[in-house]
Amino acid sequence: MVKRKYAAVAVIFGNTADRYVIQGYTEPRSFDQMLDDATKVKGLTGIELVGGWHVNDENQDRVVKLIQSKKLKIAMLIPEIWASPKWGWGTLTSSDKGIRRDAIERIKVAMDLARQTGCNQVSPWFGHDGWDYVFQADYARVWDYLIEGVAECADYLPEVRIALEYKMKEPRTHAFMSDLGKMLLLVQAVDRPNVGINLDVGHALLGYESMAECVALLDRFGHKLYHLHMNDNYRLWDDDMIPGSVHTLEFIEFFYWLDRIGYDGWLSLDVFAYRERDKIAVARESIAWLETLSAVAGRLDRKKVEAVLKSGDAMKAQRLVREAMFG
Amino acid sequence: MVKRKYAAVAVIFGNTADRYVIQGYTEPRSFDQMLDDATKVKGLTGIELVGGWHVNDENQDRVVKLIQSKKLKIAMLIPEIWASPKWGWGTLTSSDKGIRRDAIERIKVAMDLARQTGCNQVSPWFGHDGWDYVFQADYARVWDYLIEGVAECADYLPEVRIALEYKMKEPRTHAFMSDLGKMLLLVQAVDRPNVGINLDVGHALLGYESMAECVALLDRFGHKLYHLHMNDNYRLWDDDMIPGSVHTLEFIEFFYWLDRIGYDGWLSLDVFAYRERDKIAVARESIAWLETLSAVAGRLDRKKVEAVLKSGDAMKAQRLVREAMFG
Amino acid sequence: MVKRKYAAVAVIFGNTADRYVIQGYTEPRSFDQMLDDATKVKGLTGIELVGGWHVNDENQDRVVKLIQSKKLKIAMLIPEIWASPKWGWGTLTSSDKGIRRDAIERIKVAMDLARQTGCNQVSPWFGHDGWDYVFQADYARVWDYLIEGVAECADYLPEVRIALEYKMKEPRTHAFMSDLGKMLLLVQAVDRPNVGINLDVGHALLGYESMAECVALLDRFGHKLYHLHMNDNYRLWDDDMIPGSVHTLEFIEFFYWLDRIGYDGWLSLDVFAYRERDKIAVARESIAWLETLSAVAGRLDRKKVEAVLKSGDAMKAQRLVREAMFG
Amino acid sequence: MVKRKYAAVAVIFGNTADRYVIQGYTEPRSFDQMLDDATKVKGLTGIELVGGWHVNDENQDRVVKLIQSKKLKIAMLIPEIWASPKWGWGTLTSSDKGIRRDAIERIKVAMDLARQTGCNQVSPWFGHDGWDYVFQADYARVWDYLIEGVAECADYLPEVRIALEYKMKEPRTHAFMSDLGKMLLLVQAVDRPNVGINLDVGHALLGYESMAECVALLDRFGHKLYHLHMNDNYRLWDDDMIPGSVHTLEFIEFFYWLDRIGYDGWLSLDVFAYRERDKIAVARESIAWLETLSAVAGRLDRKKVEAVLKSGDAMKAQRLVREAMFG
Repeated sequence: MVKRKYAAVAVIFGNTADRYVIQGYTEPRSFDQMLDDATKVKGLTGIELVGGWHVNDENQDRVVKLIQSKKLKIAMLIPEIWASPKWGWGTLTSSDKGIRRDAIERIKVAMDLARQTGCNQVSPWFGHDGWDYVFQADYARVWDYLIEGVAECADYLPEVRIALEYKMKEPRTHAFMSDLGKMLLLVQAVDRPNVGINLDVGHALLGYESMAECVALLDRFGHKLYHLHMNDNYRLWDDDMIPGSVHTLEFIEFFYWLDRIGYDGWLSLDVFAYRERDKIAVARESIAWLETLSAVAGRLDRKKVEAVLKSGDAMKAQRLVREAMFG
Repeated sequence: MVKRKYAAVAVIFGNTADRYVIQGYTEPRSFDQMLDDATKVKGLTGIELVGGWHVNDENQDRVVKLIQSKKLKIAMLIPEIWASPKWGWGTLTSSDKGIRRDAIERIKVAMDLARQTGCNQVSPWFGHDGWDYVFQADYARVWDYLIEGVAECADYLPEVRIALEYKMKEPRTHAFMSDLGKMLLLVQAVDRPNVGINLDVGHALLGYESMAECVALLDRFGHKLYHLHMNDNYRLWDDDMIPGSVHTLEFIEFFYWLDRIGYDGWLSLDVFAYRERDKIAVARESIAWLETLSAVAGRLDRKKVEAVLKSGDAMKAQRLVREAMFG
Repeated sequence: MVKRKYAAVAVIFGNTADRYVIQGYTEPRSFDQMLDDATKVKGLTGIELVGGWHVNDENQDRVVKLIQSKKLKIAMLIPEIWASPKWGWGTLTSSDKGIRRDAIERIKVAMDLARQTGCNQVSPWFGHDGWDYVFQADYARVWDYLIEGVAECADYLPEVRIALEYKMKEPRTHAFMSDLGKMLLLVQAVDRPNVGINLDVGHALLGYESMAECVALLDRFGHKLYHLHMNDNYRLWDDDMIPGSVHTLEFIEFFYWLDRIGYDGWLSLDVFAYRERDKIAVARESIAWLETLSAVAGRLDRKKVEAVLKSGDAMKAQRLVREAMFG
Repeated sequence: MVKRKYAAVAVIFGNTADRYVIQGYTEPRSFDQMLDDATKVKGLTGIELVGGWHVNDENQDRVVKLIQSKKLKIAMLIPEIWASPKWGWGTLTSSDKGIRRDAIERIKVAMDLARQTGCNQVSPWFGHDGWDYVFQADYARVWDYLIEGVAECADYLPEVRIALEYKMKEPRTHAFMSDLGKMLLLVQAVDRPNVGINLDVGHALLGYESMAECVALLDRFGHKLYHLHMNDNYRLWDDDMIPGSVHTLEFIEFFYWLDRIGYDGWLSLDVFAYRERDKIAVARESIAWLETLSAVAGRLDRKKVEAVLKSGDAMKAQRLVREAMFG
């Protein structure tokens, strides 16, 4: 079993808003404060930054030094192509050539930063690329844009990995890059060695996907599991709760598959702690759950599991998990 | 058939944000601009105001005169108990007595305004009263608070109607006041003649409720349909799209039941037009759909419908609707 | 903490079919075989029978003796008002007076049997009372039938409890008796001391209800939790899987509330073990999960829980549960 | 606009069961009776048969002549790999080599029949290939079986098309072949010119997919839309209601895309008319809806639609559809 590497998106330590409470539920917090908090979470060794937001050409040196001084690593650079109204009608799939161009530029800028900071990976998310109403999108045309856009980025810096993130919906009612199957299709169409997937496990749950199956298929179709966003939800919406707070057995199965494919990347906390005032507790409790459920997976006898998988006997499977959990 | 009376929440003409694009997708707009827009929508005769926000003790005279000068009516006053972080952990059901008291005061202030402006009804929505995680709420205790709180408000000004609004979730992952059944239970427990329901039809759809059934039951259990919020969605989230843009037949059935119970209140557009730049078009298109589908319902032969309802014959029912739609 | 009493619906030990494999997935099994299996499940002391199916006027003496000889108790009698095409268009809410009358008779027959066998409770489920298509039901009228029908049954034998079961859908796409709120409304409208609820926890999950909240509200509104059907699912359908196989933390919270209200009734396994050949393992594994999760709930410090509930602090709540689970 | 060709699965005219009413809701009906019914539905020119069930080596000549005598065409042959308990633990993905072999044989037999009858296409559905519980399936291994199995069938008779059907769940709680993305991935992995997709539009709706987007993507990725199964549902379950009875605008958009890609295959009614006694009315009403909504799509000005798609203006889109519907 590989030792888990935990990171967090910086915003887990920030003040989060929703459409009703636009100013956010807790006090505003600076990036420096968020980093300070991060250092107080045992086991947390990486941080994700939004490029062009937390880090940009101008503050880059300062930010990198600051992060190093805290003994944190930059786990991921996220291109900012979703937080400004400019992107509201799409990025790579916009009908507006200028917007498509700008989105590609933003990804490339993040890639530059990723290379310079040694993080070497970026994770674009295309939350505005989709539609809300019928007859609002040319479903076929957009895939040309998608494939071309991702390919252009991939070719720009082949040594930087592009970990695409998908989600079925929100903020659009429907996203083009909605599920694992479509993402693997896209990855194959783009056909570049540095293009893979950032699996947000909550997005998998939201789409009635199995987190474990996603891991297995990402590995089977080209070793394309590049990164993990960790959170939890009640399956019907991207609630972004702490991982382990809703699903228990499914996380254990997920860890079993992570070990089976030998995943050694980050498990990065992507939690929206709207109402939690103690943000450090949020990260700590997240890691506590992950460590606990990962340890349960580690107690499973691999051979017994494989025999059970082969048998397809659900009651034997249940017993195995239950005993690994509670002895 | 009663002539429909259309209103709109003021924010349909405003700039709307979500958790990703906090500044909103379009340009900021003043209340006066929103009112101006409202006057440009044919058939729109009422406007809903958020008390303490659009209208308060200080600006009240000005606002009322302004609205009158535009020949609009105040359709509803909404107490502001959901847009500030203060309410984030609950209002009437907060563990904090001070917060509960403040929430009651805010409702009473809205009731005062409702009386003074002649609108005579308020619609509190308790979006923060609920929970996100297990073991976060005392599910039994909160109902004491709820019943006491609503009763106190009802007694404060018996001539002002309180139209309670429910929704299954959001912003909390779970709300106490989640569905029609619980609301009727609450209404009966409160047992005041001026307490009823503001049915947001999108919230009904989100909860796998039938809009038509909600109308029928609200009428059957004490004539408690006080007000209507109109919008549409894909059933799994409160997408707040324009009414009629997803569901067609169900809106026709809904209008049939409105007529059957003789509803003569407002149909108020509660739409979040995130990405629609032309807000006037949003309201116009909403009313166009509602008028169209209402007209279809009006073409149904009441006796034939009742015969079909009695027969339970779905194919006859389909034919009836189809022919009313397309001749 | 009250010691848990486990029962099972007899069919858990039977051969179960679905709409594709109508003959069922495993071998046909006689009622005697099912009973034999039941005796092999440690901790299982009760069995639920379908009146008019497993037990009727003619075989009653034999069946009761057989069950007694196995040292099992009859936990519940279920009136057969859902397994024959006769009921397909509704029972208590049928437009056909004869069908309504027959359904009431079937419930009364089950009540007679319940009294004679000492079980003293029946649990009618109204799966066919609902609708599939728009304009197929008179949503208001059916509530008169419902209230009258249940009241007539309640008055027939006041010493026998009627534990009504609800479910949002299936086999109809929509049921009249769909959720907890509507059931409490019905219970209050019927207003008889022997009418309460059989809470199928899977039906609660399917309806995005909280199992714990259901327990709390059933107790708060008249101590109406009469019986429990135990199973699990992925929230979107009544999958009837073994309890504990999907939801873990929510079952712990559920047990906490059972203890808090002092529930001392049955926990009855209502599982459809379609593909599980070893039916005894299904019941054993179900009870193993329930005992395990119940024990975790028992390890929670009641005072600490109440402090956490009052605080609404989700992270403290998570820690409490996690430590009760894993130390 | 291509003239629509309507077919139906034979069972639409039959007696349908579910897990509660195993004998079915209406009278048993012979295959001959079903065919007779089919001839009474104006516009219905094709029929789908289950190979090994409606038609087999022995009755083949009689059945084909019977169908021809009724002036019906065989629209599709469905291999029977889902109606017997034998398949309950999987077909092509079974751990049991013998079962895998038998499933392949059954598909080949159907292919032979398809060639001999001139239908020239088969549509296997893998409803039992999936899992119910965690740790019940080796998610990676099964894809080897799937790809090998489908490829072997494809090579057996390259002149017969294999139209694979997917569905997210049921009868398993999770299917391997669950959504459009995974199917296109499979089609590409199999890489045979005679392997494509039978799109069941209800399955798309169930999986929060857009029917129109499915059509567009199936065309874009290799012209792989081979066949259509038509029905409708409330998005959360495969209710198998008549097409058009729930979704209206989405069907219009779907027809627009069918025309745009030039689809000239069958639209085959796959409806489970559980409670509808008049099966002919079910098929008639289905076709009436499809013709109506198809005609609306036909009234859309193609250039205007394309301009709207490009603009992404949802209100313009709504107006376009509304006016095409109601003038």
